Amino acid sequence: MNADKIPDIIIGRLPIYLRALQRMAEKGIQTTSSQELGDRVGISAAQIRKDISQFGEFGKQGTGYRISFLMDKLREILKIDRIWDVAVVGAGDVGHALARYQGFVDRGFRIVTVFDNDQSKVGQQIGDFVVKDTSDMIEEIQKAGIKVAMLTVPAAAAQEVTDMLIKAGVKAILNYAPINLNVPEDVRVQHTDPVTHLQRMTYYL
Amino acid sequence: MNADKIPDIIIGRLPIYLRALQRMAEKGIQTTSSQELGDRVGISAAQIRKDISQFGEFGKQGTGYRISFLMDKLREILKIDRIWDVAVVGAGDVGHALARYQGFVDRGFRIVTVFDNDQSKVGQQIGDFVVKDTSDMIEEIQKAGIKVAMLTVPAAAAQEVTDMLIKAGVKAILNYAPINLNVPEDVRVQHTDPVTHLQRMTYYL
Repeated sequence: MNADKIPDIIIGRLPIYLRALQRMAEKGIQTTSSQELGDRVGISAAQIRKDISQFGEFGKQGTGYRISFLMDKLREILKIDRIWDVAVVGAGDVGHALARYQGFVDRGFRIVTVFDNDQSKVGQQIGDFVVKDTSDMIEEIQKAGIKVAMLTVPAAAAQEVTDMLIKAGVKAILNYAPINLNVPEDVRVQHTDPVTHLQRMTYYL
Repeated sequence: MNADKIPDIIIGRLPIYLRALQRMAEKGIQTTSSQELGDRVGISAAQIRKDISQFGEFGKQGTGYRISFLMDKLREILKIDRIWDVAVVGAGDVGHALARYQGFVDRGFRIVTVFDNDQSKVGQQIGDFVVKDTSDMIEEIQKAGIKVAMLTVPAAAAQEVTDMLIKAGVKAILNYAPINLNVPEDVRVQHTDPVTHLQRMTYYL
């Protein structure tokens, strides 16, 4: 296996498989097939087998996949067999929602800090966090060694804050602002946007 | 072109292409190549050409794609050459964020109503909306002919609300709750979840 050679598009599907497997595991299901997994995630069984086989032989012809084993393997591949500390920048509606989101547990991430530049928000309590001032952000993120951030500031501020995050050593940014961010090659950005999800569904209506 | 035969995985990439094209258009760029588009979205040029060619010949060898033309074609394919009315169910943090989100404009959707079952929220103003009571939801959605909903209620309530939405005639649900929804075959569900985005990035760290 050569990590550099796996297309990003395959990497992007692994978390979808993992989420479906985790939900099956929660229901006490112990084994699955590429067919069953495919039905749950809307991807063909052949594609799933092909994707997973990029990383090794994790299933058996006829008996399928042991869910806990496949989950462990996927976690290892995605490097979420550890816990990544995450900074949230922007304590607006989305920042609030993230700070309270229950879906991070057991999935490789924990929010450790929330920043905002609005002095009326700094010091405010959100869930378990006290909002910190963005002016201390670069130093705090550096000191804590945080590599992952979620960016929930308004579009007009997003690039400036991104530049600060990069300076602080952040290497992965989940961007909620509806603009493109310019980042160096060693920094990953993912956009999340309700509209792209909606557009994918109207095709079928 | 036979709509039924295009894999969902390709349909899922079209909104990503469209978003990138829209941003290029906003900058005044008029033409692009599969290579340039690919660099922006992190998908290979060959894959982009293959995806787009499923629907017809929209570019020219050597000169690439006219952005406005390709955007029109993608909008037509995705059926967002019209405006879909959307109901938001759940007036919590995410519901607030969606009701105020500026990213819907010109992209095929508009939120027309926000519901919650919490009587302390019913009647509240969020952006341009007054939160309505979920007990009137089925009737209101039916009357308005709304086919698209965004579900931002807690996980424990998500299936019950989904059943109501289906009864009301909704055919596409964007689900923010961290659970699987059971829906009939003619209803589409998309999950949106910050963790799957984060997991896709840590692979590279």
